[in-house]
Amino acid sequence: MAYLRNTWYVAGWSNEIGEGLFSRTILGESIVFFRDKEKNGQIIAARNLCPHRFAPLDRGHLIDGTLECAYHGLRFNTQGKCVFNPDGDGRVPAGTKLTIFPVVERWKAAWIWMGDPSKADASLIPDYPFLDTPEWHPVRGLLKVRANYRYITDNLLDIAHVRMVHTTSGIYCESLSKGKTELIREPNGAIWANRLGVNGAPPPLFAVMWQAAGFGELPTHMDHWADARWDAPSLILNHVGITVTGQPREAGLEAKNTHFLTPETETTTHYFWTNCRAFALDDTHLDQAILSGTEHLFVDEDEPMLHAVQAAMGDRDFWAMKPALLQADIGPVAARRALDKLIADEQREAPIPTKASMTEAAVT
Amino acid sequence: MAYLRNTWYVAGWSNEIGEGLFSRTILGESIVFFRDKEKNGQIIAARNLCPHRFAPLDRGHLIDGTLECAYHGLRFNTQGKCVFNPDGDGRVPAGTKLTIFPVVERWKAAWIWMGDPSKADASLIPDYPFLDTPEWHPVRGLLKVRANYRYITDNLLDIAHVRMVHTTSGIYCESLSKGKTELIREPNGAIWANRLGVNGAPPPLFAVMWQAAGFGELPTHMDHWADARWDAPSLILNHVGITVTGQPREAGLEAKNTHFLTPETETTTHYFWTNCRAFALDDTHLDQAILSGTEHLFVDEDEPMLHAVQAAMGDRDFWAMKPALLQADIGPVAARRALDKLIADEQREAPIPTKASMTEAAVT
Amino acid sequence: MAYLRNTWYVAGWSNEIGEGLFSRTILGESIVFFRDKEKNGQIIAARNLCPHRFAPLDRGHLIDGTLECAYHGLRFNTQGKCVFNPDGDGRVPAGTKLTIFPVVERWKAAWIWMGDPSKADASLIPDYPFLDTPEWHPVRGLLKVRANYRYITDNLLDIAHVRMVHTTSGIYCESLSKGKTELIREPNGAIWANRLGVNGAPPPLFAVMWQAAGFGELPTHMDHWADARWDAPSLILNHVGITVTGQPREAGLEAKNTHFLTPETETTTHYFWTNCRAFALDDTHLDQAILSGTEHLFVDEDEPMLHAVQAAMGDRDFWAMKPALLQADIGPVAARRALDKLIADEQREAPIPTKASMTEAAVT
Repeated sequence: MAYLRNTWYVAGWSNEIGEGLFSRTILGESIVFFRDKEKNGQIIAARNLCPHRFAPLDRGHLIDGTLECAYHGLRFNTQGKCVFNPDGDGRVPAGTKLTIFPVVERWKAAWIWMGDPSKADASLIPDYPFLDTPEWHPVRGLLKVRANYRYITDNLLDIAHVRMVHTTSGIYCESLSKGKTELIREPNGAIWANRLGVNGAPPPLFAVMWQAAGFGELPTHMDHWADARWDAPSLILNHVGITVTGQPREAGLEAKNTHFLTPETETTTHYFWTNCRAFALDDTHLDQAILSGTEHLFVDEDEPMLHAVQAAMGDRDFWAMKPALLQADIGPVAARRALDKLIADEQREAPIPTKASMTEAAVT
Repeated sequence: MAYLRNTWYVAGWSNEIGEGLFSRTILGESIVFFRDKEKNGQIIAARNLCPHRFAPLDRGHLIDGTLECAYHGLRFNTQGKCVFNPDGDGRVPAGTKLTIFPVVERWKAAWIWMGDPSKADASLIPDYPFLDTPEWHPVRGLLKVRANYRYITDNLLDIAHVRMVHTTSGIYCESLSKGKTELIREPNGAIWANRLGVNGAPPPLFAVMWQAAGFGELPTHMDHWADARWDAPSLILNHVGITVTGQPREAGLEAKNTHFLTPETETTTHYFWTNCRAFALDDTHLDQAILSGTEHLFVDEDEPMLHAVQAAMGDRDFWAMKPALLQADIGPVAARRALDKLIADEQREAPIPTKASMTEAAVT
Repeated sequence: MAYLRNTWYVAGWSNEIGEGLFSRTILGESIVFFRDKEKNGQIIAARNLCPHRFAPLDRGHLIDGTLECAYHGLRFNTQGKCVFNPDGDGRVPAGTKLTIFPVVERWKAAWIWMGDPSKADASLIPDYPFLDTPEWHPVRGLLKVRANYRYITDNLLDIAHVRMVHTTSGIYCESLSKGKTELIREPNGAIWANRLGVNGAPPPLFAVMWQAAGFGELPTHMDHWADARWDAPSLILNHVGITVTGQPREAGLEAKNTHFLTPETETTTHYFWTNCRAFALDDTHLDQAILSGTEHLFVDEDEPMLHAVQAAMGDRDFWAMKPALLQADIGPVAARRALDKLIADEQREAPIPTKASMTEAAVT
């Protein structure tokens, strides 16, 4: 199925892109990244394919701020213009141009726009202020998932799988399981799928955070909420918290977790995750516990199931398979339909260019 | 090419399906099997794909006689009806249904019907009484062959390959090789391809059986017959025997061997074989000799050639390649054409459903 | 893309085809080769697929000058006629025929014609007399390249890549790099892409050859030429030499190198290369230096880049990608367009048969 193109995808965490060349496949296309030293390290993203003879540019080097191809030594500036040819008289056809993709660095991540560059608007990136403020402390990670990004979106918006899949990670909560998912649609298209578990035993995993937050022992009766916001194309924000039964949420503890899903291919996904807290900011032991706990939860519990679904489905279409949908699917279904519509609208306006015709270089 | 669907395929030997879940890919579709304790262990076969969110059900468990999905905990009874949802208020859309395939256990094997369930008729399974009677003793096996099932059918119906392929297993017989294959068509569609070798040296491999049957040394001049019956879609029965030249068959020795071929995919096949005898029933040494001899014959001699043909042919169509056909091909050709006709007739009546549309679950 | 079929491809070096059967995939088709002892070892090339039941014939044996299939023992003579069937009454359908491809042994290589046999004309093989004359000494090799043959042709006709790719093999020459590629078209369709580097430091790799040729130390100022001739479909001849600045070429040293590219598949190529000299003919140390130097140059420098281009391009079409072309591309572009035209003309006249319909065997 087509990808939404006029949108922002996370291409990498800011700290992944350093002094040299960095490449990653996004929406099936290899992209090469580097920082422009002349402009305070602004991130440049280019198609990883020389417009001359199609060598991957990540085999090359940065020379005086230009990207040099390792095959024939053509050099491209940060606007994609070919500014040097070492061979012969050094001439280059006027239109020789490397495709450059808009990139914005925000929330400690590099966001790439792989659609119509004239529509790239940084203000369309959703707000995740807790990812870049002294009051909050995020633990970050990146995982590869062997499944289409939409199955992962489904999974993240669906509380019902926790009981079965997360049997060893301490995040299951019986009262939440008995709750009902509420759907809230925001005017900007964001969709919330929220659940509240009232007056039950909180998920055991919260004990460590409750203690680190200075609250002491975990109470036996609490309210537990798990709210998930979806923003197109595949950005999920979780508000997950606990408070003593009947107390306001502010009196308890809440983690803000993000899940940014970037398709690598139709069947593999780059999964950028954070777990953010506003307490115990300097607690490196807690950082480590969150990191290993989260990786266990994703790598050992979610990922094998998501991969099994992907393998079982193959290239069959989700809707054509007529899924039997439950109350807990209200979030995944709303997000799927919203994304389906965005993609259909975009395709109607301007069909997605094929890889071939996206090369902007001139022919001599 | 399409598979024949309104027919029985062997899904497994009875003893492969025990207390837990068992899965196998048949006609390209993963199927999960288990036994219904409430009904004397009757075998249930279900599509290995939850109709909710398409997790493979063999990752789940049997709970109180129901099949529980490991993803969201939905439970299905032996009719495929979803009878339990652990999440929220526990409601399930009325039409939520797991596809169940008819299965019959007969001749110590589980037979599956992957076509229109209303047409499933156990009496269509051919008779192989020697597989389940005290008077006969079968040695059984299961092999995986890296070739389309029709190449294996061809091979089993064709005596001419024995001279070249089975050079180390002692089943070659010069007089049989010089014989002529006779074709017999039965009213029910079964096809016999029979050959008789008159007054020649018998295949050396028969020496062990001749001795075990109490006949002593193998005579030097014998009549040797190899009769093969094909039943749709890919069930072969061999009557292979020897008798002293001119004596009636009953005075000699005959093995009844079956070869049940079940397509796993277009290029791989589950090969269920038996070698049955009516003498030396308790001779476990003979069992072992038959097992290792048969596996040698199939694994080391037939399979590499069948795989080489498959690899060389790729997805090219057999008839489009215009095979040069010999007298010995009369059996394979008759069976191929009979199966071609059955498939064409079935497709004309009711085109084979695609995988996607076969899911019977309702959408809410 | 379609291959040119009415043309000669190198199938192997003569010494690769000895007493037994030899098989190689060419243009995506497996071919089996052997020598006809009756005709002074003339090379026979046959489709590696028995016209009876499609077993690969290279599993068989040569019996009395015939090619015997290992599956059913049919034997084919060097004209492809089936001359023996060991089974039954031994009859074979009259039209049973193995496809035989015209082969010519020339320049110590076997050339195969995989198009219309009636058009096979040995005089169409270009002249490479230095490959088979006492006055010249060739060093030969064969490499597998993980790229489409046309990317390799491009690479061989393009001097501009030497600066960047061949950084460790001593063949780079600054003065040549600053030269201009001249295009010469021969009446027979051959295309020369020639470059001259005037009065510069010669490539360091020439020092060994200059010494071996008895010239002593390599002068510091020389003229260096690199002329490349392309003949359809993918045969490249290089004249590469050096002479003291201003002296005639004959006063210097020239190697004649050939590069015969035979598509194995769309993405892999058999690369037959030679490096030929008219001096130091018996110098086996020089042979070894040329062999290891050339293999280093191809295997460690060119091949990884060609494979990277192939992987980056996938099955995208070169022209559809609108390459930005430089002066140095004049040779590759001329050869690409000439081959495009030959293929288009051939396809218009007689579309390339599919694999299936090329089998000439009769059906009974």
